[in-house]
Amino acid sequence: MLDIALLGCGGSMPIPNRFLTSLLIKYKGRKILIDCGEGTQVSMKILKWGFKSIDIICITHRHGDHILGLPGLLSTIGNSGRTKPITIIGPRGIEAIIKGLKLAVPNIPFQVEIIEDPKGLLGVKVSSEGMKVKKTIHEESYNDDFVISTLELDHSVPCIGYSFYIPRRPKFNIDKAISNEVPKELWKKLQSGEVVIYEGKSFEPKMVLGKERKGIKLSYIMDTRPIDTISGFIRNSDLFICEGTYGDDEDLEKAIKNKHMIFREAAQLAYEGDVDELLITHFSPAMDEPELYIENAKKIFYNTNIGHDRLIKSISFKDE
Amino acid sequence: MLDIALLGCGGSMPIPNRFLTSLLIKYKGRKILIDCGEGTQVSMKILKWGFKSIDIICITHRHGDHILGLPGLLSTIGNSGRTKPITIIGPRGIEAIIKGLKLAVPNIPFQVEIIEDPKGLLGVKVSSEGMKVKKTIHEESYNDDFVISTLELDHSVPCIGYSFYIPRRPKFNIDKAISNEVPKELWKKLQSGEVVIYEGKSFEPKMVLGKERKGIKLSYIMDTRPIDTISGFIRNSDLFICEGTYGDDEDLEKAIKNKHMIFREAAQLAYEGDVDELLITHFSPAMDEPELYIENAKKIFYNTNIGHDRLIKSISFKDE
Repeated sequence: MLDIALLGCGGSMPIPNRFLTSLLIKYKGRKILIDCGEGTQVSMKILKWGFKSIDIICITHRHGDHILGLPGLLSTIGNSGRTKPITIIGPRGIEAIIKGLKLAVPNIPFQVEIIEDPKGLLGVKVSSEGMKVKKTIHEESYNDDFVISTLELDHSVPCIGYSFYIPRRPKFNIDKAISNEVPKELWKKLQSGEVVIYEGKSFEPKMVLGKERKGIKLSYIMDTRPIDTISGFIRNSDLFICEGTYGDDEDLEKAIKNKHMIFREAAQLAYEGDVDELLITHFSPAMDEPELYIENAKKIFYNTNIGHDRLIKSISFKDE
Repeated sequence: MLDIALLGCGGSMPIPNRFLTSLLIKYKGRKILIDCGEGTQVSMKILKWGFKSIDIICITHRHGDHILGLPGLLSTIGNSGRTKPITIIGPRGIEAIIKGLKLAVPNIPFQVEIIEDPKGLLGVKVSSEGMKVKKTIHEESYNDDFVISTLELDHSVPCIGYSFYIPRRPKFNIDKAISNEVPKELWKKLQSGEVVIYEGKSFEPKMVLGKERKGIKLSYIMDTRPIDTISGFIRNSDLFICEGTYGDDEDLEKAIKNKHMIFREAAQLAYEGDVDELLITHFSPAMDEPELYIENAKKIFYNTNIGHDRLIKSISFKDE
């Protein structure tokens, strides 16, 4: 099971009662933060999920509303007693910006490892000690606890979207194991994903495993115009968190000019990507009550929800 | 008249319902901000005094709780339509930190002029167009609308205190003008502070002005141990805003270790400096209700108040 908390739902600048867009993901007791505008740490403090177990911070782009909370958060994570490294992932150019921000908090008691502009997939192993990011992998595998993919978006500065996929191991299939004549003593190893050589013969996991099962997929697309590549990238997400800077259809021109989306466009992406649920966030400070515009999205994609600060959701594997 | 608003009262890190230490000063429709921790702009937004008319930002030191709100605030001031330069004053080393933070907000539509480690006095002229800081002046004069002084404090990094003095022109004294045989046509010019040469003779303002009158003095001392030079620096302040990170006398050891003060020490400075009022702020996040410790200060300096976010005060010239 994966838990998410939307720490803030604002774009551009923080306003009273609406922190800037940021998402916290909890998985196996460890955490990933995506985006970190000014004040993110305050929303985290209200949420009470803790600071010390944040292992990965994903940044979509270098605009202030997505990164200016970073130095304060790193400092607070330091005060929480963390000494293990943190991995920050971001688009091209992010390393220089982070180095600049870090000048203001020079005494952080842990290393910050930056992965700039990752190409391909990043496999992540999770243990009680923390999350470990492999630089790149070639394909999803059951050896990784989850996989992070990125997609280049269309904003006024380099901006990337993220998806997180937790693969689900197929069930053990005893009939298959028997019909494939797999010795019983190998069943457990094969089930756990290992290839085993036994009496000169190679046995593979698929010889004892049933059909593929869908894992958990979460996608996060901020600060972009809707581009063709998004629907494939978010395909079959259990939850698709998407920017909807403007609710009103009449703000389309503004959205085009500022390289953002209106609710209707986010819904269209959700529909094309065949996701289970759309959660809209990143609201313009000029939009007091985003809920007023929900129908603009729902008429295109029914299972749409409008974000609010510290909205929490759990996503589980579907029974199969 | 001078108005102040305490934007936040927290030290170290922002917590729910307590922004980080920051002070906004309003004078003749223009504004000065002192310190700018993360979230300062949100408190300003709640206060509704506006962003565009901030002409000077004074920074006490480079710790995150005093500067990390700066890039976001500069960006928001830019969005407010400001194009005129802003002057930032701070201790040695501040320029490099500000340059680092500014990397994250590269498109600010105004110049930032930095005065690092000012020695002596800074005279400021105020007009409806904005405040203009002269680099240094040698003494207070009625030609400046107010004067900023700084004092080196004793913290773990270079840290300076600030005082703001608005001089008050003496009243016109008709008896003196007559007894000094000042021609009537010169009275107005002399009253406004000009020296006038008339029929080969020099006339000075003091020939028509009465006795000296006390101006308005505001002092701001954050993040320091109490040192000998403070009482002279804050002498006769109408309002002395001082850090009191810890309320409990028993936290003295912690205060010494972390280079901060307990309430009692702030009160002792107020007493020695013979100020009119002490306002304590910059509370440790561990101290939920600073009000509980007010007696520790009051028994040494009676006119002590405990700060809270968006506390507002007006200071007027005293009738004389």
